Amino acid sequence: MQDREKAFIRALIQSGATEGIGDDGVLIARDCAGYVVASDAFFEDVHFKRAWGSLEAIVEKCFAVNLSDIYAMNAIPSFCLLTLALPNGFKEVGRLANVIGKCALKHRIKIIGGDTIAGEKLHFSLTILGKRQGRILTRKGIKKGDILGYISPNSVLTHCKTQAFGGNIKALKTALRFHKNSKIQSNTRFAKPILYPKMLLRLNGIARVGMDISDGIFMELSRLSRLNHLGFKITKYKGEWLYSPEEYQMLYAIPKMRLKKMKNLAKQYRHAFIPFAQAVCGRFMESKRNWHA
Amino acid sequence: MQDREKAFIRALIQSGATEGIGDDGVLIARDCAGYVVASDAFFEDVHFKRAWGSLEAIVEKCFAVNLSDIYAMNAIPSFCLLTLALPNGFKEVGRLANVIGKCALKHRIKIIGGDTIAGEKLHFSLTILGKRQGRILTRKGIKKGDILGYISPNSVLTHCKTQAFGGNIKALKTALRFHKNSKIQSNTRFAKPILYPKMLLRLNGIARVGMDISDGIFMELSRLSRLNHLGFKITKYKGEWLYSPEEYQMLYAIPKMRLKKMKNLAKQYRHAFIPFAQAVCGRFMESKRNWHA
Repeated sequence: MQDREKAFIRALIQSGATEGIGDDGVLIARDCAGYVVASDAFFEDVHFKRAWGSLEAIVEKCFAVNLSDIYAMNAIPSFCLLTLALPNGFKEVGRLANVIGKCALKHRIKIIGGDTIAGEKLHFSLTILGKRQGRILTRKGIKKGDILGYISPNSVLTHCKTQAFGGNIKALKTALRFHKNSKIQSNTRFAKPILYPKMLLRLNGIARVGMDISDGIFMELSRLSRLNHLGFKITKYKGEWLYSPEEYQMLYAIPKMRLKKMKNLAKQYRHAFIPFAQAVCGRFMESKRNWHA
Repeated sequence: MQDREKAFIRALIQSGATEGIGDDGVLIARDCAGYVVASDAFFEDVHFKRAWGSLEAIVEKCFAVNLSDIYAMNAIPSFCLLTLALPNGFKEVGRLANVIGKCALKHRIKIIGGDTIAGEKLHFSLTILGKRQGRILTRKGIKKGDILGYISPNSVLTHCKTQAFGGNIKALKTALRFHKNSKIQSNTRFAKPILYPKMLLRLNGIARVGMDISDGIFMELSRLSRLNHLGFKITKYKGEWLYSPEEYQMLYAIPKMRLKKMKNLAKQYRHAFIPFAQAVCGRFMESKRNWHA
């Protein structure tokens, strides 16, 4: 997120019209009669380029990014509203509808409304309503001494079929280097985020705080620091994994005594819970790296 | 709505992933635990031109269009999610946030989430959640013999301060003719839709079917005809009012015996209920006129 967008959100919050939004625009979670709701934009040439992949891959990613937010709040996606701008001259209108329909069916969400307009580019705005499962998981509530870790596919158990956490930074660099003509490697989570709803809903139950990592761990730590008035001591070697964006994996903060339980549960789903930091007094400073426009 | 957008929605419905959407993409109404929810796009150079008015007027219209949908379903707007694309070089970021905040406060809705991105143009996508008041008002349920009428400010009672129904077609024609450089006349509902929530919520209680008129009465009659398997006999002289778009006034279908009650109630709020058609057997054919892109 750019400074300009931050300035916008800060001014909006100052106006007194917002509720449940963090000072970087991150929804802390709002419960409307048992539903949580989240909106996301997925715009051509901002979030994706059409040359990067098939319509299927674009739609799947658009949905996965949003669904990931809902699961991260400990809710099961039920309904969606889709606002779509179709560029003039776009020939695959019928196919796009089929692809969207299939994707919604696959994720068991009903499309209950939206808006379709003619525009200059292919823009998606998705609002998803999810049915809350027990306690809502927010970004607030970390206590001193808590362990922070992320979820990564266990490469030994899965025989390296899925990319481990941190690989997206390479995929994104490749995509940006070859720009318009190159397709993204299809086995990266950047191209094809994979959701593990069953695992997430179980892990959510153990965690104190949880979120999906969209802008990289470093960025999330800065947000968590501001929200929770705590600092973080990095306990894992520092590397590119700290900045890898669009992983759509979960970051959890758990009480130290639940570490073993968390690790075992992740292992059941062929994943690993990888601790990388501990909550301490102080403040964690923000990175300047940013991938979106 | 263009044929292309219609084709998209039809294909989407055929995919089996939708619920509660009419075959022209109009939400029939969906109740999520007492909330109705509606999304709308408000895109620069599709729905508005920046030269047409101030930021205040643009934001106010963006909200009013969406709020009108919620009131029309017999619900009180409570929460909104705003997805916003800010064009590069847009200088009034802070002011825009203030304007949006003021507008939300004025309409008593809390902004609970959304997304802010950098884009090429000023695009708004708004999702509003409204708390249902009694029965949801949909487009379905007209019976043969029902009276169809629209609500118009009573120009005698209001001393011509607000424009009567049908005036928008002139405002829009002027705007399109002078194109980029002209401001829209600020006293038209096209520039500044005015909502009468209290009146609407009371009138909704009497009506059998209700909706706000966004694409003109002629277009709405075609939709109602398809949904209700009925035709309509126009009982008022035919004129431009049939095609006037973006009026954001209500169209109601009521049982004949409630006509007097409806008229009296509208009069209490300095408005008039103006009957213009009666439901008959048959089919009402669609107009080709369309104002959006």
